[in-house]
Amino acid sequence: MKPGSAGKEAERKGTEVTEKTLFQKLKEYNKSMLPMHMPGHKRNLALSGTDGYLTALCADCDITEIAGFDNLAEPEEILLSLKKRAARLWHSEEAYPLVNGSTCGILAGIYATVPHGGSVIVARNCHKSVYNGLQLVNAKVTYLMPEQEKVTGIYGSITPEAVEEALKRVPDTKLVIVTSPTYEGIVSDVEGICKVAHTYGVPVLADSAHGAHLGFGSFPKSAVECGADIVVQSLHKTMSSLTQTAMLHRTGSLISGEEIQSAINMFQTSSPSYLLMASIEGCIGLLEERGEELFDGWQEALELFYSETKDLRHLSALGTDKVSELSFGVKELRTAMMSHDRSKLLIGTAGTNLTGAELMERLRTEYHIEPEMAAEQYVIAMTGMGDTKETLFRFAKALKEIDETCAEVPVKEVICPALPGVRMSIGEAMQAESEERRIKEAIGQVAAEHIWAYPPGIPVVVAGEEISEELAEYLLEKQRRGVDLHRRSGTCKGEFRIRVITGTSFCK
Amino acid sequence: MKPGSAGKEAERKGTEVTEKTLFQKLKEYNKSMLPMHMPGHKRNLALSGTDGYLTALCADCDITEIAGFDNLAEPEEILLSLKKRAARLWHSEEAYPLVNGSTCGILAGIYATVPHGGSVIVARNCHKSVYNGLQLVNAKVTYLMPEQEKVTGIYGSITPEAVEEALKRVPDTKLVIVTSPTYEGIVSDVEGICKVAHTYGVPVLADSAHGAHLGFGSFPKSAVECGADIVVQSLHKTMSSLTQTAMLHRTGSLISGEEIQSAINMFQTSSPSYLLMASIEGCIGLLEERGEELFDGWQEALELFYSETKDLRHLSALGTDKVSELSFGVKELRTAMMSHDRSKLLIGTAGTNLTGAELMERLRTEYHIEPEMAAEQYVIAMTGMGDTKETLFRFAKALKEIDETCAEVPVKEVICPALPGVRMSIGEAMQAESEERRIKEAIGQVAAEHIWAYPPGIPVVVAGEEISEELAEYLLEKQRRGVDLHRRSGTCKGEFRIRVITGTSFCK
Repeated sequence: MKPGSAGKEAERKGTEVTEKTLFQKLKEYNKSMLPMHMPGHKRNLALSGTDGYLTALCADCDITEIAGFDNLAEPEEILLSLKKRAARLWHSEEAYPLVNGSTCGILAGIYATVPHGGSVIVARNCHKSVYNGLQLVNAKVTYLMPEQEKVTGIYGSITPEAVEEALKRVPDTKLVIVTSPTYEGIVSDVEGICKVAHTYGVPVLADSAHGAHLGFGSFPKSAVECGADIVVQSLHKTMSSLTQTAMLHRTGSLISGEEIQSAINMFQTSSPSYLLMASIEGCIGLLEERGEELFDGWQEALELFYSETKDLRHLSALGTDKVSELSFGVKELRTAMMSHDRSKLLIGTAGTNLTGAELMERLRTEYHIEPEMAAEQYVIAMTGMGDTKETLFRFAKALKEIDETCAEVPVKEVICPALPGVRMSIGEAMQAESEERRIKEAIGQVAAEHIWAYPPGIPVVVAGEEISEELAEYLLEKQRRGVDLHRRSGTCKGEFRIRVITGTSFCK
Repeated sequence: MKPGSAGKEAERKGTEVTEKTLFQKLKEYNKSMLPMHMPGHKRNLALSGTDGYLTALCADCDITEIAGFDNLAEPEEILLSLKKRAARLWHSEEAYPLVNGSTCGILAGIYATVPHGGSVIVARNCHKSVYNGLQLVNAKVTYLMPEQEKVTGIYGSITPEAVEEALKRVPDTKLVIVTSPTYEGIVSDVEGICKVAHTYGVPVLADSAHGAHLGFGSFPKSAVECGADIVVQSLHKTMSSLTQTAMLHRTGSLISGEEIQSAINMFQTSSPSYLLMASIEGCIGLLEERGEELFDGWQEALELFYSETKDLRHLSALGTDKVSELSFGVKELRTAMMSHDRSKLLIGTAGTNLTGAELMERLRTEYHIEPEMAAEQYVIAMTGMGDTKETLFRFAKALKEIDETCAEVPVKEVICPALPGVRMSIGEAMQAESEERRIKEAIGQVAAEHIWAYPPGIPVVVAGEEISEELAEYLLEKQRRGVDLHRRSGTCKGEFRIRVITGTSFCK
């Protein structure tokens, strides 16, 4: 347990012991001043309505950048201290609290490092926000395709060797982007990737939206500790901060702090919510004061879960010792990935008479348990700082009961299509003249939009990629199997259509 | 009072009377389900710490996109209903609730309408977020400079004639951008501007961040009602929603809703806060149910304020009948502007022995009143839906007491520099090689960064503009007078420096 350790704590307390928390300051400020400034509710709880929403939503702490409360776009006082505390806790050189989610950190990280038309090496299993950032700078993209495990379709890790091979092919690369851990908890060898990239003088951006807890307790090393130049973490996904809060960490000399702050200020509201900022501070305070105890508790709860589910007969939890290799294809997965973040509970349904969606539905309706997401042959349950032995025991118990009612069926493999051919940059494809076609009539054409599965929001087709027959079949099969596919205009329902670049000259 | 009127209300109630509010749904959901999904606090209030921050910040309502709670990026259920209610209330065709502030709406509006390198006509007194949007699309910009009132330096309105003249000069214009109302409440003739622009087939984006309340009660017509194609409004600045919430309205056939939603989804977190969304819904519910009563109350409070302050001897409130023309230069201001949003209280100090900053300091320390902002010769006090006769009477009383202690001094005029020459696009200037110089040594060079006064965040120098001797003097004078000037690296303190494009070939 690095953070929250006695030394660090004393150091912090020694220098800042008299400092009030942002939340305390907000609470105290309330009592004395007449606000002739924004926001317009003026802490007037008579506006709260019959359901008391405004009171409950803490309007009495909702302020603007008045004297004594600093400015998130240019932190100099209490928010600078917050930045420093976050940097100390996660071992970065500089930390930037965000109130527009990891989305904003990803856009800012890309915008600050990649000039217009610059070359970027990108893991193909990145979140849609990465593709949006690449579109903004009209990047020339070289993709790295992680292996996919055959039964679940889960993407494995990105290897340093693959990054090195790409860097040799694209010597003018400005940035390498990987997602670690992934939505499913797959952790790449970010340390190895950074060593390779830094040899070429290229910075690494790690999308660790799902990994703010890494580096604490006995979880795998964080991307910050592995030397990534920019690391973006959601603070709500696994930690205790409110939804929409995040942190960007900067380390090393390849990227300037000024460039990062300037890019963040482009993509983040100039009226940031003090409630969200207070929740970031509260989360950091909690980690400083009680981090060790809370992470011990979380990990004990996880061990209880894995121990309770190790004897499942049909379903299987990735990470248990006696997991059925058949039903989860774990052998391939273990090869493809560096390590697994055990806080993500992956429950395989392959080889049983349940789909992921059916398992999710049974958990929801029969057990009042809401998992995070269902894929074709597995369900993801997210755990976080707030979980306890009670919550995870209840989840394990539900799985055991459902397991007893399952029947065995032959294991199906999912289709894993090859990386589509890239014919244009995302930026060019998005601006080109386009028309909508039925997917079968789009074969051989270049996509003018992304198609992605949600969650987690990884594009199956990226604008500028060629739609092969295999890819068209894959999309139709996914739709038949009830996967939640999305395009710009909304969910892909009924006849499967896609916008393609007008004219086929790119493809034949 | 258009919205909240009996007909509208009945229509809404007739169709949606049984629908629960988002806040009610959040409160009820809490009781039954075990969350095996994000966020990581899991509504575990044991994480709340000694100051109870998590409880107070309403963590029990902080969820992710689980079943029954829709998806802000693709609204289909309760959030679609919210969109429709907002569109009905503000008379737009489509409304988009935003949780990343007006910033996000401005970026999205520009990105959805202006192709890379496209031409845009822009009022030079726009907020920094507009310049950020122009940078993202590398726009070719033609500026419209509003007149400046001589004593306060307040920018007047943009006229339809100026827009027409610019459209004639730049026939391939993709978008016209104006700010109305401004931070100071100056309302332009948006109806006339839209008529002209639409004749040329060009859409209009109105930054109405400070004008969500326009169109209600007896406030001036809103930019939506005036026909602007895209209108961006902050919902916290004058209305009752929490800070960081906003609404984008789309009207007419020049811009597609799909383009707008897609652009919003680029710049807004994919993990939007349900607390912020619930506050947007609460605000809309309040306007539907009690809008008329609340706006009547607000306006009565304003009339009380203006009546109480009409006999000030030294200070002057813009909008009172007997305002001292000398001390506020109101004659010029009235000529330059279309109309004034009376919810913004502008207190002039010209001709008195107080600066704006000194008046603000006295209000703060002697009267415990925090105004919104101090300029050299005036103070802005923002009012909002939450103000009452009591709050505005207290403010007026403080002003009267201070007024009695003021002495008369000769009126100073502020410097109003001419529009700087544009030498490069913002995008090009931001990517060009640059170096830092003392401002006096930067004369004749092209700026590689913006310099802006905060608040309200209007750039004095925009990247790509030539730094004239007059402009350098103006900046130094502003700094001497204690104006809060900012550049990318933070506040302009001590020696005034600025980044300029390396090489002077552009300028001589």
